[in-house]
Amino acid sequence: MPCFEISILGGTGGPFEASTQCFMIRDARRRDLASICIDGGVGLGAIARMLRQPAHPGATESLYANELEPIQRYIDPALTASGAATQGFSDRLMMHVPAAPIVQQALIIFQGIGEYYITHPHMDHIAGMVVNSAAVFEPRAPSKKLIRGLPFTTTPLQEHVFNDVIWPQLTHPLLGSLSFSPMQRSEPSASPALPQFDITPFEVHHGARVADPNDTVSSTVYVITDRLTKDTIVVCGDLEKDPEDGPDGQLAAVWRHLAQNVELPRLRALLIECSNSKAIDETRLFGHLSSIRLVGELEALRAAYGVDSLDSLTVLVSHVKMVYADEDPRLTIIDELRQLAAARNGLERVSFSIALQGCTFML
Amino acid sequence: MPCFEISILGGTGGPFEASTQCFMIRDARRRDLASICIDGGVGLGAIARMLRQPAHPGATESLYANELEPIQRYIDPALTASGAATQGFSDRLMMHVPAAPIVQQALIIFQGIGEYYITHPHMDHIAGMVVNSAAVFEPRAPSKKLIRGLPFTTTPLQEHVFNDVIWPQLTHPLLGSLSFSPMQRSEPSASPALPQFDITPFEVHHGARVADPNDTVSSTVYVITDRLTKDTIVVCGDLEKDPEDGPDGQLAAVWRHLAQNVELPRLRALLIECSNSKAIDETRLFGHLSSIRLVGELEALRAAYGVDSLDSLTVLVSHVKMVYADEDPRLTIIDELRQLAAARNGLERVSFSIALQGCTFML
Repeated sequence: MPCFEISILGGTGGPFEASTQCFMIRDARRRDLASICIDGGVGLGAIARMLRQPAHPGATESLYANELEPIQRYIDPALTASGAATQGFSDRLMMHVPAAPIVQQALIIFQGIGEYYITHPHMDHIAGMVVNSAAVFEPRAPSKKLIRGLPFTTTPLQEHVFNDVIWPQLTHPLLGSLSFSPMQRSEPSASPALPQFDITPFEVHHGARVADPNDTVSSTVYVITDRLTKDTIVVCGDLEKDPEDGPDGQLAAVWRHLAQNVELPRLRALLIECSNSKAIDETRLFGHLSSIRLVGELEALRAAYGVDSLDSLTVLVSHVKMVYADEDPRLTIIDELRQLAAARNGLERVSFSIALQGCTFML
Repeated sequence: MPCFEISILGGTGGPFEASTQCFMIRDARRRDLASICIDGGVGLGAIARMLRQPAHPGATESLYANELEPIQRYIDPALTASGAATQGFSDRLMMHVPAAPIVQQALIIFQGIGEYYITHPHMDHIAGMVVNSAAVFEPRAPSKKLIRGLPFTTTPLQEHVFNDVIWPQLTHPLLGSLSFSPMQRSEPSASPALPQFDITPFEVHHGARVADPNDTVSSTVYVITDRLTKDTIVVCGDLEKDPEDGPDGQLAAVWRHLAQNVELPRLRALLIECSNSKAIDETRLFGHLSSIRLVGELEALRAAYGVDSLDSLTVLVSHVKMVYADEDPRLTIIDELRQLAAARNGLERVSFSIALQGCTFML
């Protein structure tokens, strides 16, 4: 029985604005539309697109060598064969969506989103959530939502975005529908919308400021654990490897936490960024991973667990940058990851898939 | 010979994030890809979508009573019949786009955008521009761009957005590709990308802050005039009617400027918001127009010109709010506008069309 239902509303690292990161997550066992989102790069527009019948079932928009590509090129065929990955929303979700025009259905699904967990306040992780936020006041589908995150995320959203300059201050207490709920570093807290899940935010490194390279930028990894079964998924924002010379290992602390608290078979999926191909100049990572560095982190995770093999761990790869190229960079990167992992002891059986926009994973 | 080529990358007022306001404008006589954008709610993603062959030519996504609707329901059939309105980009633009994958074509068209003229710094008018901005550094399609606007727009973009918190400070002078270029109220200045065009920004009213209703919010109307022919289009950001009791009439000043400087037949189009149906509670306009108020402004424009009729003025209607409804609000509003104008002396022959995402107007 799957525990987590993850719909990829958006899963790239830009620069195209219609596919930036937003993962809608449900408790797969619940019989309602309650959900949370990790990040909010896109939202209602992507939900509406998922509700349309696909013109070419089994194919996804690529817009590189071919306009469309088979979904199997992006997603481990074992996941599609078992029903763990499907195009569009799950049948279980759609059971609770009334027959209605797509705009209405989208607003009803949006109504079910109880919280956003934002990984960091960069525009490609918040823009959809902000533009959509006016819809909490939709008279025929009103909702209340929390915007959650570590203070380095919620404070700038309050000061720089919901400030009556960049966006109306819809978080004003008198309006009563949208509010901030800061979290504490490495402290679990129950999701109000999905109380079966404990969510723990870990701070990680994400490059430096342009104006001052000594001033580092942070991001968040969310560890989401079912309170009863202890099944766990790990959902990462943008991140880079820990600095070689730094005092702390922030990402190392995440791997250590998992090894100490989550039995490996309970680790249902690692949703992690891989912005770049291994071909990138490593001085131009700007706070991100490449395929070679992601494989390095998987080795660190294996070492933290002290096991010979990560076995069939499901890794969902997000935030690929859609650069000017002949081949779809998502295909380049998934191929690189599979080849690199095949050559590393203990990673041979890891299952890699792209966190493909418009698909749902049941894990 | 048309002078202005206006591609509607996005033309609604949200809350769906994939269709928010961005108008790409070319000089229809130029043989290159130089362009400017008024607002940047969407961008590269919408360009890529326009480059795809439409699955249903002549139809547009509605997602209300029907998933698709004929374009003729949104656009004055006289414009489509004459070729003044077409689906997708113009043949003239496409002549300069190489045969290549759609992502590459989109990045090449994006490369041609020389300036953004932002009407006000609200998220639904900037999000696409910000997320896309990383692509100015795309090695195979680099570009330099200016972000222009009145200081109430450019200053907040600098302080709250390109501030190394909400988005990397890609406008840092050392990077040399993206910079701010503030404009002066009511002062014409030539567009560097399209030097044949003079662009004059007028400040207008756009509601009040949530936290302090006495603190008003401003927006911009851009008047774009061909230096030689004096052909003119007027492109509006969000706006409301002038306050009854205010000392100044900001929108009245725009109509007066047009009447004094632009012969009526040279006024090729008025691109203006109409966020709401006439059914809206007028206390809930939040700084926007309704169909009944837009018709009121057209009467004010006719009065400023001192003419009996606005004759066949082309009005392109943007920023309709995609609310929970049974009928597509754009169809509701275009019908209301046509009915209201038919009953007003001097507006009977005004041509109304929706500024429909994915369409190009040659005017």
